[in-house]
Amino acid sequence: MKRPFDNDSSLEVKAGVELPPSINPNLRRRQPQPKPTQDQLIDGIKNGDRVLLSRAITLVESRKEEDRFIAHQLMNSILPLTGNSLRIGITGVPGVGKSTFIEAFGVKLVEAGHKVAVLAVDPTSERSGGSILGDKTRMEALSRETNAYIRPTPSGATLGGVARRTRETILLVEAAGFDRVLIETVGVGQSEVMVHSMVDMFLFLALAGAGDELQGMKRGIMEMADAIVITKADGDNMNRAKLAAADMSRALNLFPKRSDGWQVPVKLSSAITGDGLDEVMTLIEAYKAHQTESRRLQQNRKKQALYWMAQSIDEKLKQHFELVVKDQQAEVANLVEAGDLNPFDAADRLIQMYEKQLREESHNK
Amino acid sequence: MKRPFDNDSSLEVKAGVELPPSINPNLRRRQPQPKPTQDQLIDGIKNGDRVLLSRAITLVESRKEEDRFIAHQLMNSILPLTGNSLRIGITGVPGVGKSTFIEAFGVKLVEAGHKVAVLAVDPTSERSGGSILGDKTRMEALSRETNAYIRPTPSGATLGGVARRTRETILLVEAAGFDRVLIETVGVGQSEVMVHSMVDMFLFLALAGAGDELQGMKRGIMEMADAIVITKADGDNMNRAKLAAADMSRALNLFPKRSDGWQVPVKLSSAITGDGLDEVMTLIEAYKAHQTESRRLQQNRKKQALYWMAQSIDEKLKQHFELVVKDQQAEVANLVEAGDLNPFDAADRLIQMYEKQLREESHNK
Repeated sequence: MKRPFDNDSSLEVKAGVELPPSINPNLRRRQPQPKPTQDQLIDGIKNGDRVLLSRAITLVESRKEEDRFIAHQLMNSILPLTGNSLRIGITGVPGVGKSTFIEAFGVKLVEAGHKVAVLAVDPTSERSGGSILGDKTRMEALSRETNAYIRPTPSGATLGGVARRTRETILLVEAAGFDRVLIETVGVGQSEVMVHSMVDMFLFLALAGAGDELQGMKRGIMEMADAIVITKADGDNMNRAKLAAADMSRALNLFPKRSDGWQVPVKLSSAITGDGLDEVMTLIEAYKAHQTESRRLQQNRKKQALYWMAQSIDEKLKQHFELVVKDQQAEVANLVEAGDLNPFDAADRLIQMYEKQLREESHNK
Repeated sequence: MKRPFDNDSSLEVKAGVELPPSINPNLRRRQPQPKPTQDQLIDGIKNGDRVLLSRAITLVESRKEEDRFIAHQLMNSILPLTGNSLRIGITGVPGVGKSTFIEAFGVKLVEAGHKVAVLAVDPTSERSGGSILGDKTRMEALSRETNAYIRPTPSGATLGGVARRTRETILLVEAAGFDRVLIETVGVGQSEVMVHSMVDMFLFLALAGAGDELQGMKRGIMEMADAIVITKADGDNMNRAKLAAADMSRALNLFPKRSDGWQVPVKLSSAITGDGLDEVMTLIEAYKAHQTESRRLQQNRKKQALYWMAQSIDEKLKQHFELVVKDQQAEVANLVEAGDLNPFDAADRLIQMYEKQLREESHNK
């Protein structure tokens, strides 16, 4: 295993993770540099330059109008270089050990010759204050690998905004040559659906608990999972983990067969002993082969792209509508809630107000 | 049981179901009548007049502009009379015996003193040619009851259109005094989600098969079901039905507890022997009491109304958008599918085209 700065924590250069200036020796070199040009960014990404990749991602995450314009051009330039990774979404309830699994698994992937990028999606981070991967001292072993790149969650904004930035970040790390992209998401709200809609494979991590191992399982998650991994299958926990796996398999069998013929496997793994990680890697490659051979992987990506186009249009139409008839909408919603107005009439009324406003706006221009 | 024309099939007057003119003695009285006025319709509905109720529903289902205007006024007038029923959605795979169950169960409800309306939602009916409840000779026993009203599915149109008409029909039968509304839906596509979003309770009918009883269960259905009824639990099938119920209960236990504290029951029933129908009736009343006491029934209806307002707005915005940029949308989608255009940029581009068109339209007016 290649761990260049092992046993020398004072000089640790975290290849992938950006450390706070106080403890990051890289920053001395980087900080005084002027904003890189678009060509510099593109060349840097092509050469797998981690610093310029990070700058490009920051640009793509920016909400400033002038940054959006450059980001837009950048994305168009790198589009031909994208698509060559396997995109893997990873979810599970808090406490399941997502980061620990991703770190151990990521190291395995790097050892197997892959370039691994780890992204995180957590639309709740702005509210909760916390954020997955936000604690940058985590994933120490993986972050030491030169063939690993770890990027914490973009915070805030709408779900659509987070989706856009995450998708663009996936494309950027692909252009930089990363061929296994792991996207961690919290098991909260819409984030799983969102991540599911931008990955090739969805991995659900589950915990063996005291008899009620499936209680923590989110409703609907079984529909989305392409594989289930029971974590912390080691020591005293081993028997419970095996029972959980059996329960999980039985539950999966209750559902109808998938149209693609893939049978969702349930595996055990331990980040401590490393047991099971090779099997998970094998299974991921098997899934990739299965989906590639049947052309489903490509078809799925096309569908996802159209889905995001449609989602983005919907979001913008809705945003504009709500902006224009904001006050009236609240009033009308009150009438509907009170049962004084049929919801469909309410919709008609608001649409009429919207169109009237648009016409007036337009005439005043 | 009150079956006025039992054993006299030649003179059968089907109280609820509209028969073809050739065999419907009621039609002699009805056919020559002119279109009822709005006041006549309102009075008729208030008095529970089945003929005028049917006319009102036909009016609400009409897509003619002048009918929509009257329907709109009618709906507003009857709004204060609505809301006094328990709205029960009933679904299950084809062959589970939905109509047979609804008929036997409906008769039970009538015997218990209820006025029962049966509606059906089948957005697929236009494509498949067939339609649930479309075969009007079905549900003979129930259709003979004066306190039952059966209305086949409104066909065609968009899902949103079907949703609107179904919701308005629910309100009309409520205004006419029906206090138990059963809404049958096929287990296909979006129809279950739609019906789920307009009922107080969702009943899932399941079939005991040969070992794979749950295979036919649609993914996600368990999230929506408030109760599960295994049908055809009689004779040789009894043991299989019991096994299916046990499997089903175990599967339900794998999911987290519901936030409303309701534990989804699994019951056996037979439309032939009548066994289990009383239990289903008891359980429905228990659910009603549970939801009413916790105020969830009312809150749920408010949420549903706001949901339909939002859905209807979305649909209209989308329809208008697609109408305006139809050709460009197809072109841009091709670029996205080919991987030549980022879906978010595609969305931005189409939104710009849309806004430009709107401004031009407006200036030309």
